[in-house]
Amino acid sequence: MFDTVKAIAGFTRHASVSADPEAREGMEGAVKYLSALLRDNTGCEVEVVQTAGHPVVLGRRRGKPEWPHIVIYGHYDVQPPDPLDEWTSEPFEPVVRDGVMYGRGTSDDKGPMMVHIAALANVLERRPDLPLRITFMIEGEEEIGSPSLAAVMKARTDSLRGDFLLMSDTTSVGIDDESITTGLRGMSALEVRLKGPGQDLHSGFHGGSVMNPIRALAALCASLHDADGRVNIPGFYDDVVPPADWEREELARLNRDPEDYRKLLGVPELCPPPDYDVFESRCFGPTLEFNGITGGYQGPGSKTIIPARASVKISCRLVPDQKADRILELVEKTLRERCPRGVTMEIERQHGGDPYVVLPPHKSGEAIGTPKAVAFKAADEAIREVFGSAPHYLREGGSVPVLSDIRRILGMDALMLAVALPDCNMHSPNENMDLLMIERCTKVSERILEAVAGTRG
Amino acid sequence: MFDTVKAIAGFTRHASVSADPEAREGMEGAVKYLSALLRDNTGCEVEVVQTAGHPVVLGRRRGKPEWPHIVIYGHYDVQPPDPLDEWTSEPFEPVVRDGVMYGRGTSDDKGPMMVHIAALANVLERRPDLPLRITFMIEGEEEIGSPSLAAVMKARTDSLRGDFLLMSDTTSVGIDDESITTGLRGMSALEVRLKGPGQDLHSGFHGGSVMNPIRALAALCASLHDADGRVNIPGFYDDVVPPADWEREELARLNRDPEDYRKLLGVPELCPPPDYDVFESRCFGPTLEFNGITGGYQGPGSKTIIPARASVKISCRLVPDQKADRILELVEKTLRERCPRGVTMEIERQHGGDPYVVLPPHKSGEAIGTPKAVAFKAADEAIREVFGSAPHYLREGGSVPVLSDIRRILGMDALMLAVALPDCNMHSPNENMDLLMIERCTKVSERILEAVAGTRG
Repeated sequence: MFDTVKAIAGFTRHASVSADPEAREGMEGAVKYLSALLRDNTGCEVEVVQTAGHPVVLGRRRGKPEWPHIVIYGHYDVQPPDPLDEWTSEPFEPVVRDGVMYGRGTSDDKGPMMVHIAALANVLERRPDLPLRITFMIEGEEEIGSPSLAAVMKARTDSLRGDFLLMSDTTSVGIDDESITTGLRGMSALEVRLKGPGQDLHSGFHGGSVMNPIRALAALCASLHDADGRVNIPGFYDDVVPPADWEREELARLNRDPEDYRKLLGVPELCPPPDYDVFESRCFGPTLEFNGITGGYQGPGSKTIIPARASVKISCRLVPDQKADRILELVEKTLRERCPRGVTMEIERQHGGDPYVVLPPHKSGEAIGTPKAVAFKAADEAIREVFGSAPHYLREGGSVPVLSDIRRILGMDALMLAVALPDCNMHSPNENMDLLMIERCTKVSERILEAVAGTRG
Repeated sequence: MFDTVKAIAGFTRHASVSADPEAREGMEGAVKYLSALLRDNTGCEVEVVQTAGHPVVLGRRRGKPEWPHIVIYGHYDVQPPDPLDEWTSEPFEPVVRDGVMYGRGTSDDKGPMMVHIAALANVLERRPDLPLRITFMIEGEEEIGSPSLAAVMKARTDSLRGDFLLMSDTTSVGIDDESITTGLRGMSALEVRLKGPGQDLHSGFHGGSVMNPIRALAALCASLHDADGRVNIPGFYDDVVPPADWEREELARLNRDPEDYRKLLGVPELCPPPDYDVFESRCFGPTLEFNGITGGYQGPGSKTIIPARASVKISCRLVPDQKADRILELVEKTLRERCPRGVTMEIERQHGGDPYVVLPPHKSGEAIGTPKAVAFKAADEAIREVFGSAPHYLREGGSVPVLSDIRRILGMDALMLAVALPDCNMHSPNENMDLLMIERCTKVSERILEAVAGTRG
């Protein structure tokens, strides 16, 4: 049997922070580790495809053309680990406490991705001649918006086009409540930099005669929401399509307690915008969030300056049928129109992606008997058996922007088996992965692989 | 002759950043350096008075009780040197280029303070029996609001009370245009910290359901000015007294070009608030400035989080008859009233001080013949001679909050001989001191000391 826990731990030790130019060693280590893992345990032929950014690892189990072909997506890069002082153990030295592994990337996406590697290894151990073609397509730039994967897919459309995409980079409801994710929000992100004086000024000598870039930035940021919390950018909501009734009902059936959720987040009050309840706002509503702001003196005590500049990182989460490029244009246009006097503005557009929805065949009325429909059916049945209850079909608020690219370029929809749990601290300190979820989801993945293999010509 | 340039350079080498708890070595070094300098060159009896914070250095030239007594104020601490990468030479390795010395503290206040040490040394060389009592009172906490000096003054009222205070910690008009400073703005400062979620959250999973602390902080900050740039805090302007007509005229006579000033600062546009022109707003008008803001992800690229917290450093410059404590109360009250929902607020009050005005005896109709009046007259005459034109009597926008304490506790007014120049980059990278100003002002200070010595009983 494939030792999944050991494999995740070893993978996590590589600090593969794609956003950090200093993390070269971690990125390279992760690529080597993953390549060896695929080669040694699944017999895949591994190719490391160089790109303008971080490489894509392709792992191929070839087979007869009439065999079904599943493409398994994952990403070996992780979010930056800071703030470091809030971790109770080292982010890149995974430890297991009470059946939960802690470490950066354990739940996003090194643990969940490992489920499918383990599943294939286990199935092949039982049945080395499995009539199934598999392509692992593991990128290293998901956390920075997958700027290179599209080019790789375009250059290899034929070999990368499978019957459907299998992936686990989304979040379930609970350890006994597995979900199949039916949608993800899109994203538009940018950084705004305001420049005032040529250098920091003494706030006594010059205070009163110049615009303070922090003041200008605060005014600009404050203008982006109205008093009720709606995004205050003309046209922002124009293309928003409300979810289907069954989706709202499926979400409501979870019957979650807002007070429990409030406590989990540690906020004094929940603040959903109008038109959505607190759970709906997380997956059916679009947002504009400030991810970081900086300007002026950051050290201890005080320093009475007017800073030369101030900047803010902004990202929007998008829902159907908002388009990432269009929203970026609207946000940028609004920012430029509202730029206060006395400062100059520079905007850097960052990664983005359109929102993504994939309805399960039994909801969309799609043809049965296709590898994709068989996979969804197998997943549904296996989840009932392994978890003891039917899966939830839910959209979630996160983004995997590359999914829209995959659909557009390779024409594949995704079966998104959720592996992470809501308290896994993805993108936060003390990221963790419940190893029971890994075990259960590996069984589900095995059933999917076996069922799809059974659909061959 | 006292080697002033060498003395300033040696003093500057000690990185005495009072705001930085790590700068212990620099603070201690500056105290030792200064003590030795006073002892060796002026024969002063030196006492290092320990306080709850950084020590006060007292240097005493004792004499007969009927001799006039001048207290000379200065501070040996400096502003933090960052942003370091904008310095063209090391902040604590002074270099002289074209008659200008560059280094942190050269103009605030190590160079200007040295003028009076040099003047006393030079005068004593010519006339060792000078009938004048001198007390140097040099603190190490001016840049953090002089929290300890008041207690030292209260404990030694009798020995520290002189006929007047002589000090140089203000800015002149130009190398040929010396000014005597007639007022400084007061200050109220605080730091506001907003706390939202217990830790940074994934902006996809939770974005929409919680208040983003950066958004809350931006709204809060944006509310503190109205669209015209006035401070939008109820009661803020209640106690503001406009300057005397002669003060406005004296300022206007400088006939400065706003366009030159705009270029000097490197801003796209000057933005004075209503009711003041661009130069008046710097000294006659109160301000509220943001000195630093921080929250969320600050690193390269993007990190899609909702940060757990965000904070801002705020300082107000005050004019007569605003009171620092009252303004602090108003600002804090307003911030608490406007605290957005979904976050909690913590406010830390920082150093402050009331505004300070000291009119020259010939404007205030004060008695002539007192040591203070003699000093002002001698300064006026010496400036005409050394600089070739009459001094300007101007208020400036900076703050030396301890001056109000000195007046209240010791009952002394200050003669503020401006030594720094407008382009000295005080509090900014590449702080510098024109050595010709040092030379000229030393001559003026010598004349003041000699004239006052002549007023003895």
